[in-house]
Amino acid sequence: MHKSLLTISSLEDIKKAHEVIKPYAHHTPVFSSSQLSKRLNAKVFFKCENLQKVGAFKFRGASNAILTLSDTEAKKGVATHSSGNHAQAVALAARIKGIPAYVVMPENAPKVKVDAVRDYGAEITFCASTLEARETTVNEVVAKTGATIIHPYNDPRIVAGQGTAAFEFLSTNPELDIILTPVGGGGLLSGTALAAKGLKPGIIVIGAEPEVADDAFRSFSQGTLLPNHNTSTIADGLRTSLGELPFSIIKDQVDEIVTVSEESIVSAMRFIWERMNIIIEPSSAVPVAALMEGKVDIAGKNVGIILSGGNIDLDHLPW
Amino acid sequence: MHKSLLTISSLEDIKKAHEVIKPYAHHTPVFSSSQLSKRLNAKVFFKCENLQKVGAFKFRGASNAILTLSDTEAKKGVATHSSGNHAQAVALAARIKGIPAYVVMPENAPKVKVDAVRDYGAEITFCASTLEARETTVNEVVAKTGATIIHPYNDPRIVAGQGTAAFEFLSTNPELDIILTPVGGGGLLSGTALAAKGLKPGIIVIGAEPEVADDAFRSFSQGTLLPNHNTSTIADGLRTSLGELPFSIIKDQVDEIVTVSEESIVSAMRFIWERMNIIIEPSSAVPVAALMEGKVDIAGKNVGIILSGGNIDLDHLPW
Repeated sequence: MHKSLLTISSLEDIKKAHEVIKPYAHHTPVFSSSQLSKRLNAKVFFKCENLQKVGAFKFRGASNAILTLSDTEAKKGVATHSSGNHAQAVALAARIKGIPAYVVMPENAPKVKVDAVRDYGAEITFCASTLEARETTVNEVVAKTGATIIHPYNDPRIVAGQGTAAFEFLSTNPELDIILTPVGGGGLLSGTALAAKGLKPGIIVIGAEPEVADDAFRSFSQGTLLPNHNTSTIADGLRTSLGELPFSIIKDQVDEIVTVSEESIVSAMRFIWERMNIIIEPSSAVPVAALMEGKVDIAGKNVGIILSGGNIDLDHLPW
Repeated sequence: MHKSLLTISSLEDIKKAHEVIKPYAHHTPVFSSSQLSKRLNAKVFFKCENLQKVGAFKFRGASNAILTLSDTEAKKGVATHSSGNHAQAVALAARIKGIPAYVVMPENAPKVKVDAVRDYGAEITFCASTLEARETTVNEVVAKTGATIIHPYNDPRIVAGQGTAAFEFLSTNPELDIILTPVGGGGLLSGTALAAKGLKPGIIVIGAEPEVADDAFRSFSQGTLLPNHNTSTIADGLRTSLGELPFSIIKDQVDEIVTVSEESIVSAMRFIWERMNIIIEPSSAVPVAALMEGKVDIAGKNVGIILSGGNIDLDHLPW
């Protein structure tokens, strides 16, 4: 009962989220590579969230959460702690809504990321680079401003927003038999599962994760949330552990979690850069690597991958 | 009389070319960057030929030339000498047509380019890296096989094919006031001018070229074809000198040729990589650099740039 209720209500939430964000988010293009499809003996399609606003799917969730705030909440602004794509997404969505964004970033955050968040008009507070310092600092900011915290994945408005990528993907490519996304905190994978299974119950939904940060794989296998011990993957977007809310959806709705080596992440990333002339960040390459490693049975199938983002430091490429 | 005849006949040729290549070429997407538009106080649109088959607009011309060969010509195959995007374009178009492609490449051509041409099924003949050796060798190949030489730009079928990019661009973005392309041999610029002026006579068409290889700028200014003396630009696609046929169109139809520094080419290229998450080769960045250098008066205008290609060696990036 819990399962079906969640499914039904959330597909509706995703449709509503899509209406909310449509005027602001890109309807990202879907590309294919005939070389890759030939090599894998399948038809492979890519939903290019690396070409989304702020260069990542994160804009979908953040804009849904922020654009649907009540007027009372909105006027006090929003807050988050992040050094990644979520920070930029919150900053841009807040600017669109015309409200303040308070972003807590570690002192050692890359300058390019700090500049991007500042360019979107957010007010930045720096803190030590521990999770504890970040949480303390964001709580201080909230105490002072009354801002609403926008969590990167433990929030149904965020999950619904992230699900709009798969919603669009299946609208343009209803032939998909299998859909894969990377899994970090789980917002994208859980939103994708709700959208995809809601629209096409027979579709297979698979999450892909680095072997060295395999908390989603272990949590899924054992049916209970287990954190990451090691976060030394090149896929910086996937270093975070699976969140409670996404996990409650993933354990019911996702068919499989597969893991890949660091070497295949780099070579899959390079393949996409060279053959498709688009820039993806290492996290986006994780499901591509899963196909290249033969971790999923895709022969003769129509396979969709959500390329999650394209933000990477061009001065530190892994080759 | 010559001028208008050429214009009219060639817009028709471009429409026909578009019908010929449509089933095989990508209708490439048009992207914009709100950051760049804001910075330049104009609306800037990019026609992404870096996302075309073989990663460059060259596929349009080569496939138009090859798909319209007579049966007698076709069965003997096609030949070209090139170490660049044209070689891959000829190889792929010949494979689609089901005929042999003979490609003469210099012995020192990068392995990645040789592999790409071979992957498309072409027969490669290596020669010394001088223009003389290339021409002698391609003539030997033709003497032996009876193949038709497909020139990269001195061919009306090629010019018509390259013009299909601007034809599509103005179909999706009829609001364009100005359109810019890079200029090397001149196939893309001349085809663009014919398409754009044919569809929208008031549109401004501008070619952009590296300062250090400014033969098109000098030829255009002086009204007579003048070759490049220096070809040391990073924009490897633009090292070739303007061809006779393209120049005969460009001198009548193009409004202006502007030049840019090597430094601005690199910084414009990096801007597009970082902000738009797409890979462009240095030649594509040349018109972007022209806007960033303020070489064109675009305030308040709708400006279209054809991003010509995205083939670059990821092991030798200019930063």
